[in-house]
Amino acid sequence: MKLLIAVIQDKDTSELQESFIKNNIRATKLSTTGGFLKSGNTTYMIGIEDEKVERVLDIIKNISRTRKKYMTPPVNLDGGANEGSYPVKIQVGGATVMILPMDQFYQF
Amino acid sequence: MKLLIAVIQDKDTSELQESFIKNNIRATKLSTTGGFLKSGNTTYMIGIEDEKVERVLDIIKNISRTRKKYMTPPVNLDGGANEGSYPVKIQVGGATVMILPMDQFYQF
Amino acid sequence: MKLLIAVIQDKDTSELQESFIKNNIRATKLSTTGGFLKSGNTTYMIGIEDEKVERVLDIIKNISRTRKKYMTPPVNLDGGANEGSYPVKIQVGGATVMILPMDQFYQF
Ligand code: NI
Ligand code: NI
Ligand code: NI
Repeated sequence: MKLLIAVIQDKDTSELQESFIKNNIRATKLSTTGGFLKSGNTTYMIGIEDEKVERVLDIIKNISRTRKKYMTPPVNLDGGANEGSYPVKIQVGGATVMILPMDQFYQF
Repeated sequence: MKLLIAVIQDKDTSELQESFIKNNIRATKLSTTGGFLKSGNTTYMIGIEDEKVERVLDIIKNISRTRKKYMTPPVNLDGGANEGSYPVKIQVGGATVMILPMDQFYQF
Repeated sequence: MKLLIAVIQDKDTSELQESFIKNNIRATKLSTTGGFLKSGNTTYMIGIEDEKVERVLDIIKNISRTRKKYMTPPVNLDGGANEGSYPVKIQVGGATVMILPMDQFYQF
């Protein structure tokens, strides 16, 4: 058994949790802040058989990895020409995953 | 030293914490949800000497394990006969415990 | 890599976080209670290279260790003589740090 600890961005939690449920992965969710203490993170603890680690890593990577996204900045409301509102490329997501050895695992 | 992580049902926390205090077990409490992401869980982290692991496991098992309980469903309020309100067997409790190796332990 | 888990008193968090940022240490913050389940603790999880463990330990020790502090008890407001308000020595701070081995570390 391993303990997998994943710190992900809040915006990726709902998609990730859906995928955990669909794949029968029991994840305990902690409310956290950080990674340089930025707000908006969520941490999952997953106790898992060694042979399933790769699959959980793939799920987290696919859903939560750092990626570029085009976002149109909000339009200004003063009725003026809107020349500034071109889509801007921003970075979203990102996950930190730590895998720890486990000596014993019990379910009572 | 070991790190013992226990995820238990919220309803068992007060009895468990009383027992931790009585037995001089220092438990750090985290607010968590999950085990298939169900709400209502609490996680304890306990840094503990190897020879005390068995005793803490026994305490958690005795207080928090899955057990059957008879519950009488709420009575309906329309004044009718109460034939449906037989006690029903439900499942309560349950604990997941992970024991991790520890390299170093400090108290400053 | 190691996982360093530090449980410290709430009053030391802001100084500690400043120091983490200044030293480029990525700490994930968990809201916790405990150490005999007393309220007012905060837990940091830090995934860290082996050779940086000593430095992080020094930072936590310097800022968060148990120390004595002189505090003047609040003055009573009934206009009477204030003979009881001598400074009193109290104990503040304190940190518990656990260092766990890590098998794998990923940033996606
Ligand atoms: Ni959050
Ligand atoms: Ni809870
Ligand atoms: Ni706190």
